[in-house]
This record gives sequence, C-alpha cells and structure tokens, in this order.
Amino acid sequence: MRFFSDNAAPACQAVLDALAEANRVDTAYDGDEWSKRLDGVFSDLFGTPARALWVTTGTAANCIGLATLCPPYGGILCHRDAHIEVDEAGAPGFFTHGGKLILVDGPGAKISVEAAAEARAQIRADVHQVQPKALSITNATEYGLTYSPDEIAALGEFARSHGLGFQLDGARFANAVASTGAEPADLTWRAGVDVMSFGFIKNGGMNAEALIFFRQELADEAMILKKRAGHLSSKGRYAAAQILAMLEGDLWLDNARAANAAARTLAEACGSRLIHPVQANELFVRVTAAEAASLRDQGYDFYDWGPDQIRLVTSWDQDMGAVARLAAAIQAL
Amino acid sequence: MRFFSDNAAPACQAVLDALAEANRVDTAYDGDEWSKRLDGVFSDLFGTPARALWVTTGTAANCIGLATLCPPYGGILCHRDAHIEVDEAGAPGFFTHGGKLILVDGPGAKISVEAAAEARAQIRADVHQVQPKALSITNATEYGLTYSPDEIAALGEFARSHGLGFQLDGARFANAVASTGAEPADLTWRAGVDVMSFGFIKNGGMNAEALIFFRQELADEAMILKKRAGHLSSKGRYAAAQILAMLEGDLWLDNARAANAAARTLAEACGSRLIHPVQANELFVRVTAAEAASLRDQGYDFYDWGPDQIRLVTSWDQDMGAVARLAAAIQAL
Amino acid sequence: MRFFSDNAAPACQAVLDALAEANRVDTAYDGDEWSKRLDGVFSDLFGTPARALWVTTGTAANCIGLATLCPPYGGILCHRDAHIEVDEAGAPGFFTHGGKLILVDGPGAKISVEAAAEARAQIRADVHQVQPKALSITNATEYGLTYSPDEIAALGEFARSHGLGFQLDGARFANAVASTGAEPADLTWRAGVDVMSFGFIKNGGMNAEALIFFRQELADEAMILKKRAGHLSSKGRYAAAQILAMLEGDLWLDNARAANAAARTLAEACGSRLIHPVQANELFVRVTAAEAASLRDQGYDFYDWGPDQIRLVTSWDQDMGAVARLAAAIQAL
Amino acid sequence: MRFFSDNAAPACQAVLDALAEANRVDTAYDGDEWSKRLDGVFSDLFGTPARALWVTTGTAANCIGLATLCPPYGGILCHRDAHIEVDEAGAPGFFTHGGKLILVDGPGAKISVEAAAEARAQIRADVHQVQPKALSITNATEYGLTYSPDEIAALGEFARSHGLGFQLDGARFANAVASTGAEPADLTWRAGVDVMSFGFIKNGGMNAEALIFFRQELADEAMILKKRAGHLSSKGRYAAAQILAMLEGDLWLDNARAANAAARTLAEACGSRLIHPVQANELFVRVTAAEAASLRDQGYDFYDWGPDQIRLVTSWDQDMGAVARLAAAIQAL
Repeated sequence: MRFFSDNAAPACQAVLDALAEANRVDTAYDGDEWSKRLDGVFSDLFGTPARALWVTTGTAANCIGLATLCPPYGGILCHRDAHIEVDEAGAPGFFTHGGKLILVDGPGAKISVEAAAEARAQIRADVHQVQPKALSITNATEYGLTYSPDEIAALGEFARSHGLGFQLDGARFANAVASTGAEPADLTWRAGVDVMSFGFIKNGGMNAEALIFFRQELADEAMILKKRAGHLSSKGRYAAAQILAMLEGDLWLDNARAANAAARTLAEACGSRLIHPVQANELFVRVTAAEAASLRDQGYDFYDWGPDQIRLVTSWDQDMGAVARLAAAIQAL
Repeated sequence: MRFFSDNAAPACQAVLDALAEANRVDTAYDGDEWSKRLDGVFSDLFGTPARALWVTTGTAANCIGLATLCPPYGGILCHRDAHIEVDEAGAPGFFTHGGKLILVDGPGAKISVEAAAEARAQIRADVHQVQPKALSITNATEYGLTYSPDEIAALGEFARSHGLGFQLDGARFANAVASTGAEPADLTWRAGVDVMSFGFIKNGGMNAEALIFFRQELADEAMILKKRAGHLSSKGRYAAAQILAMLEGDLWLDNARAANAAARTLAEACGSRLIHPVQANELFVRVTAAEAASLRDQGYDFYDWGPDQIRLVTSWDQDMGAVARLAAAIQAL
Repeated sequence: MRFFSDNAAPACQAVLDALAEANRVDTAYDGDEWSKRLDGVFSDLFGTPARALWVTTGTAANCIGLATLCPPYGGILCHRDAHIEVDEAGAPGFFTHGGKLILVDGPGAKISVEAAAEARAQIRADVHQVQPKALSITNATEYGLTYSPDEIAALGEFARSHGLGFQLDGARFANAVASTGAEPADLTWRAGVDVMSFGFIKNGGMNAEALIFFRQELADEAMILKKRAGHLSSKGRYAAAQILAMLEGDLWLDNARAANAAARTLAEACGSRLIHPVQANELFVRVTAAEAASLRDQGYDFYDWGPDQIRLVTSWDQDMGAVARLAAAIQAL
Repeated sequence: MRFFSDNAAPACQAVLDALAEANRVDTAYDGDEWSKRLDGVFSDLFGTPARALWVTTGTAANCIGLATLCPPYGGILCHRDAHIEVDEAGAPGFFTHGGKLILVDGPGAKISVEAAAEARAQIRADVHQVQPKALSITNATEYGLTYSPDEIAALGEFARSHGLGFQLDGARFANAVASTGAEPADLTWRAGVDVMSFGFIKNGGMNAEALIFFRQELADEAMILKKRAGHLSSKGRYAAAQILAMLEGDLWLDNARAANAAARTLAEACGSRLIHPVQANELFVRVTAAEAASLRDQGYDFYDWGPDQIRLVTSWDQDMGAVARLAAAIQAL
C-alpha cells in the first residue's frame, strides 16, 4: 500500500477524460481554447483579475514565478526546509541566474514574521552583500503545516514594507484550502501574495501545474521565461484541459479533502508519535527501525525521514479501508 | 482543413491508451518501470548502447543536449534558420548560460561541411572571440529537407576533427527516416552524432520527446540539467509510456510515412511553385496573396511565409481525401 | 615604431602623478574622496546630472552598462563588427545572463536608423523570438568613423520610439569629440543615450575607464553588478584619481587631438589606399603583402587586417617625426 | 590612525616604481614581457609548475578560480563566514552561473575535515539536491586564524577522496606564510590545493592579485573566463609588473611580517579581550561601546564588529610607534 508520495498517485478520471476531449485540432502552444480560459477561471476562483499559465512541473512553476520577482543579483528569503532550497537541484539559481536563497528557521518549515525579520536584519544594506528581493513560503509546508490567512497577511505586510515580492509555493495549496476552510483569496492576494504555484499533479492531475499572477505585469515576463526555459509545450491544450477539469465542480477541493481525511485518520492512530501537527496530507512519525520494518512487512510503503522517523503521505485516491488498516497497524506497534 | 502545423495535430490513439495504462501507482519522477525501459528500447532501435531521457518539449530536448556539449563561454555552429536560433526565444543561451550561436548559411536550412568550415574559419583562435564547441543540425530541416547518411557523416568528421560536439535536432527525425529509408544508426551515431532530440509530439505524441545520448557520460550530466530546469516531471511515467507506445510496432515510422505521403501528393500538385524540394512533411509554395486567399476561402488553413509564399505542413492524421482536394485546388489556381 | 594599437601606448605622466598623489590612506572601495568626485566632474562635463563609476576595462564598462538595459531574455541591436560582438569573448552574454546580440549591417561599422529598423523588423513580436531591448553603437567606430550629433539623435529617437535602451561604447569617445568638435552632451544624453563607456585607457590612461549613466536609477543597479562581477577594486582611489587627472585641463581632449592629428597625417599619405574615411585615430589601408613587408622592414609595427589590408592606429604619445617618416614611406611604396 | 582595513593602506614604493618602469610600449593584454614572466616566478616560488594570471580584484581571483572547479549545477563547500559567502555580493553564483555555496560551521572561520564531512553527509546523492564539486578555504581566515600544512593536507585528502576541487582564498596568504613559517608549497599544492588566489593588494599592492593554478588545464579555461568577465586589462603589464615587484626579494613576506608584528603587539595588549587567537593581522576584541568611543576619541579608526566587539586590522605600512600607543591605550581602558 503506497504511502510514500502523492506524486505516485494516479491521475483522476476527469483528467483522462479531459485529455481525450482536448484531443482534436486546435491552435498550437497556448493559443488554444482551453489555455485561453485559464485567466478567467482562476480570476473567478480568486475573485480578482489573475493571469494563469500552465507549466509542466512544480519546480518550473516556482522558479519562473520567483524569477519574475528576483533579479540575478537578488536574494529570496525562504525556509531552510523549503522545497526550492532542498529538492529543486538549484533550479532557483538557474532560473534567476544566480539569485541566492537566504534561509529562515522555524518549526515545521513555517516562516514567522519574526524569523524572516531576523534573517533580513543580518544583511548589511551595501553592495557587498546580496539584498533580499523576495519572500517565498510554502502552504501547506513541507512538514504538512498550514498557514492561516492572518499569518500570511502578516508576512505579506512584512514583504510589502521591505520592498520584497511575495511568492507562494502551493504544490499542496488544495490541501491547505481544504484544511483551513479559508477562502483562496484570503490565503493569497488579499494577504499580499504576488505570484503562486497552484499544484494539481500531487492532487490527481497528470502533468500540469498552474502558475498564477496577481500582478498582471509579471505574467507577461513569465510568458517569455516559460518559453525560454523550454516549458511552452507545443500541444499546450492538454495541460490547460486537465487543469480546467480539476477546477470543474471543485474536484480539486474534493480530492484534497479525501487526502486530508486519510491523514487525519492516521494522525489519530499515531498520537504522541507525531513529530508535527497534521494539518494537510503528510505525517511525520516516530517509529523505531524495527517498527518501520514491521509496517513494511505488512505491505505499507513509505520513506524513512531521518533516524527513527518516517514520512507518510496520503493521496486523493487513497482507499479508506487500507488507511484504517494502517491506522490499526500503527496503534498495534 | 488544417495545414498550418503538425503541432496542432491530435495525439494518436495508442498514446491515449498508453496514458490510461500508465495510470496506476508507481515510483515518482523517472524511477518507474516505463522510464526504465527507455534506454533499452532506444539502444535496440539504434543498435548501440544509448541513454534516453524523456522531456516535455523539443526546446528542452535541444537545449539540454546542447548544454552538455557547450560550456557557457562556447559557441554552437548552427544554420541561420535553425529552430534553436529562430524560434526558441534564446533558450540555448539560457541552458548553456550564455553560449553563442554561430550562424552558418546554406540553402534549405541545410549545413554543408564547406559552409561550416567557412564560418569556423572566420573565428580567431584567441580568448577575445567565442570558440565553437559544438555543431548542431536539424533533420529534417526547417525547410523540409533531409540529410543523407553521407552528408551527416561528413559533418560528423568535421566536428570530430575540430573537437566539436555534434547535436542533432530531430523534431522531425521520423520524417527524415521515413523519407530517406536510411537506418536510424546511419543518420546518427555512426555518422558521429553525440546527442539528439528525437521528436514524437509533431508525429502523434502528446507531450513527450526523447533526448538520446550516444556518449554515456553526457547523459549523467543531462539528468541533472533536466531536473535543474524543471523538466523532471513527478509523474514521469506518462511521458515514458507514450514514447514506448509510439515505438511499438514502428508506429512512429507509420505516422511519419503518412505525413510524408500527404506532402508528396501536395508537392506533385505544386510543381514549379515549390521553393524547396519536398523531402519530408513541409512545403513552401509560391502563391500570390489572391491565390492564398482563394485557398483559405475553400477552407484550407496555413501560414504565410513571407511575401507570396505560404507554408503547408502535413500531419500523421491527415485525411487523404482532404489532401487530394487541396492538391486539386492548388492545381486549379 | 608602434602603430598596432593604442592599447600598447604608455600611460601619460599626469596619470602616474595622480597615482602617487592618491597613494595615501583613505576609505576602501569607492568611498574615497576621488571616487566621490566623479559624479560631479562628469555632470559638469556633460552639463546634466550624471552618475559615473570607474571600472577597470572597456569590456566591463560596456557589459555592465548593457546589463542595466537588457534583461537575460532580451536582445541588443549592434553592428556586426561591434567590439561587443567580435572582441569581447561573449562577455555581453555573460553579464546579461544570456542576452542575444542582434546584428545590424552598415559600412564602416556605423549603424543607420534604416539598418537598425530593418534588423528589428525581421523579429516577430511573440515569445518565440528574442525581442530587442537595447541599441548599442560605438563612437568612434571600430573602423575609425564618427557619428554626428544628428545621426546619434536619430538613433536615439528610434530607440525611444521602440522602447529600447541606448548604450554608447565610447572606448574612443575622446577621439570622436576631438574629431567632430561636437559637444559631449550632443553626442550622448541630448541624443538619447542612456549609458556610455567613456574610454581613458587607449587615450593615455593606465587601467580605468568610466561608466556614465544619464538615467540615475540605472547607476544604482550598476553598482551592484560591478561588485558582483569582481570589478569593485578595494583600492578604488587609484582608478578614480587617474580619471580625474585626465579630465583636468581637458587632457583627455588634448591626447585625442594628438592621436587624431597623427592619423590625419598618415591619411593624406595613404590617399586612395584608404578603405574607410579617417575620422579618428585608425586607418585601414590597402597594401600588398610585399608592401606591408617593406614597411615592417623599415621598422613600422602594425596588424594585418585581411588580405592586402593593414590597420594603423595612432596614439596620444605618437612622435610626429616618426609619423611623418611613415607617411613618407607609404607614399614611397 | 587607521586600523579599519588593510584595503585602505597605500601601495608600497616598489609597486609605484614598477608601474613607472612598465610605462613603455609593449604588447597589449597579457602578451607583454612582465605578464609572460609570471608563470615562471610563481613556479619557482611554489617549487612546482604553476600557471599564474593577474586579475584586478580578490573577488575575481576567487570566483574565476571557483568557476573552473564547479559547474553551474554544482556546490561549493565553504565556511559560513567565508568572504565568498558574506562579502562578494553573490559573485560566486555569477561566475559559476548559479553554483550554490554549501555552508560549513567552525570556530574562527576555519573548516575542519569533520565539519566539511558533516555538511557533505547531509546531501543526498540524487539529482534533486545540489552535489558539492569543490571545497574552498581561506588562509588566513576572515577571523585572522591560519591553517597548518597538516590541516590543509587533511582537507585536501577529504576533497580528493570525494572528487572535489580544492580552492584557496589567499587574500591574506602572505600573512599566513609569515605567521606559520610554512613553505608556500606545503600550504597549497602539496596539500592538495588546485587553485588559489594569492593576494597582493591588502599587502602593499595597488590593483593586482594573482590567480595561481596547480592543475595546468584549469588555467586555459580561466584565461577565457577572465576575458569574458571583463578582467583582461588591455594594458596588463602594469598588473604583472606590480606583482613581480612584490615578489622580488620577498617583499611580499616582509610586508606581511610587518603587519603581523603590529598585530602581535596589539594582541599582547588585548589579552583576555581577544575573541579569536591572533595568528595574522586581524584582531577581534571585546570592548564596550564606551571603550570603543574612548579609543576613537584618541584618534584610532576601526570597525565595530557586532555588539561590544571591534575589529582591528594592521597593515604592512603600520607605524610601530602608533601601534605601541594603541596597545597602551587598550591596556589603559
């Protein structure tokens, strides 16, 4: 039973159907009818004029977005455990042409205003040091925590007051919305976010993420960066169509709710073994090597995450029976 | 009736079927069973050990390949009309970190050894000028011409003797193979090609191209460049599966043969209107503005290509009845 | 007798004296009293508020300036024979992070509005092609021609109307001013120039050029780029002091006049052998290989410049007796 | 009295004399007789074949060297307080095209094998994380500590065994040699160093540092990088000549010994106020704000270095009477 990554989950049926539906002649690149609808549907979703580009990976979504905010000589404040720092192979440096990630500490991969301010305060305002130009947060975080609208708004105010662009890595934004019940607008542009990656792939998509701009002028530059980085698919309609399919009828939210529900079930079973609160679809759990081996013997698949720690990730398609059995197995350890 | 681009054609049914087949849980990124089969099937196809990576666009395939051959301070000899020069938004400069395209002239976007040598001879061998480090050709070319194995072997020898890496943009490699009847090996590694883009998208694929290395050590670096450029899809199995589907039973060749056949039919109708010989699936045709308007009035869709010139591109799925009607319409002009 | 390059000439005595004068304790980098005077003296010289940075080479001056005008994905219109295209080892690509030089033709390495417009017109305004963001000219040009204020103003208007920044490579700006008698202002900011390299090294300096901004906001970014490229010398006062010394009493103009006068003397002797008009301190002369050998036998040192062509460059320190002897030797050929 | 930076000290007379001596016609760039002697004199100094390039700043020397060791997608292990991390404005990212500094902890800005190994061990060997390709140390360190030959050899062995290039920032290498009495060879190539910055500017030079390669093939690439970064001065003879002058008769060592001696005198006066051992020409001293103010009132100039901490830097030209007076003033606090 897979609990090692939501990246391994299948695409949902609506996505496959959308690909079949888009499988007819239309304009190449992003001139097709599906791609042209993206601005509108995301503007509706967020209740504000937005520009939306499909891209094929979360790394591309994050790094094209960041490159519109941070010049080659600038810095990006982000958490020490952020995906852009830890798991993107230096892609932010590639897309920004040498921009520097300035690391912020904080529990659960969350950034507080205080921590961001402290990191910034250590930088002399002269040409000898890299000056921060952007702030990047992840919601839900790499440790499955969510930000409240107020927390993001405070960070947005911090960014605004220091002239920093504000980027949101929303690879699991759906899980954060499902978990907090907050309005998408309150987690983003109303809180000062300029650009975000809106993840679909981990949540039942196949190979398309959305890159959303709340500052229109940035999107024009992003169109160029996207092409220049080889991310303008010639048959872009398949990317746009799958995103539209997942927005239809709030499928994206339903999928995220299912994954979150599975995680909650496991969280209850884990109890004091939990290393972080479970607010989305990831669990970090203390188990001994022997316990981990026992779970694996029972057919559960997951990653080790440091000594005596494992990570469990639930997905949109998770069979709740299997989840219940894993919960029982954990309690039985 | 669409004759404006093979990029606009649908994906073929085998590709859709492969996506459905791959729609089950497996390892993320390129650790899945489909991705792991790529090296083997391309090694078989080419009759030599090869390394094969899926990427999502032809621009990415070209530019990751070139970046393994050309350092940031190097130059790439390519045709003045090459896609990498004209239509990739400076992506070669992005992926190589500033490498320079050194332009070569020649009819039909083909490069001869003489033309390449002449371009190279104009460069002083000192630190003040950018030194060429790679040679890039396109087969079939941007004007629908093909290279013979001997022509490529001569260029390969030129490259080898001057210490240049040799890259092949094979966005329409299938059309070139179908047209020449040459062995894939004779058009590539036996002729000295180090790395190639093997196009599927224009030929019935959805969103996956193959990047093939005939020098193993380059592939390891390309794996890193691919991730760093945001081209390592987390659900990579859908990319690998569609490529495998098109290789199965030589579907890639059948599709290319169909497109080429449609082009030949049109070519016969165009006669002396043709600007270039028709050796693949593109036609460049002299028609007056009034004639072009007349064809459009009859429902044919294509691009203008300079004054009194149009481009017609045939695709794998082209209805031969429609092709025959267009041929007749052209003859009737 | 050296006629091969003004780069080989000595530094003038005032420069050496200035280094000795600056050889006392002061603030490091560019916080010293000499560096702080640069803005003022260049603002006076140009009759407008200007920002002036010392840098150590012309390549750095050109490329830092261009990098403030052209984003990584942009293009720079320049002449096919421009120093930035031919002799800077791809430095514009390095400093702009991949910007593309878009080449313009024209006799004597001069760019006309018509030629610039023609080059620009060949670029489709879409994301597939690199869009021009800047125009760069050289005055005096690589072939020793000068621009009139009107010619530059026309180019400035072209740049302005198309949203292009306008950079001037003034490695031999002094020679151009001396030759035309034009006001520095009329050759620069009044004609629409945004940023310029003001050369001193070829004109009697040792190792400092000035990078001048007529748009203040660009200079702040240039300060960062300069440091980031390793061009902020820790003992910057020696650079500033030598520039100040050459501005003092119009020494820069006297030196350029001397070099130009030597060139005129030679030009009269060359007569119909001249390939380009001689408007500054360079001569391109038709001589046979035997004639070139004869001149070299008489002790004159110069570069070959293609078959049956040589280049003669006069310098600020040229002995007029030697110049007269070379003139006679040429006439005697 | 200046104790704020050795960057502010004058150039020594031998350097000024060398500039005057080099002030005659010779080949441009680095083709002159002085530049051609550099390989030889540094090969003699180090007792091994070496290649030596002049560059105009320490940042350029460090970053060109690092760029020959680290590809754009690689990482460089360095101390958290290293100059390349803290004070070079992201220049390593610029010169390497996005390489990442991987930070190592350790007292006094020194790196131990254990600390380097620990930092390296936290990196997964997959394409998702930036892999280290080089190790960089500074000797003397940013806190004035020196490495012994054995310490460097251990780091060299660590680098070699993990396939890392090994770079030495020797902005104050002279002070380290003077302090330890070690052979230059034992602090560099015999200990596994591949490339080093050999500082002259802080030690009595004007505007030239040396970039030394102990692996010949790297120097050829560095020549290109140097030109491409605008660091190939057209009148390079002035740079080479000043370096030669400082090597003559071991002037570089005499200057460093003088600075170190001044520091030792102050160190004795500081006693338990010292934050780090004083092994070169820098002192980090605990004084209250009131005490710092008192010293400043007495005419001593220095930088604050955090709360209740100051930095004193002695220079080659320091008047020992003034040093003695400052020592007394500190003791009198």
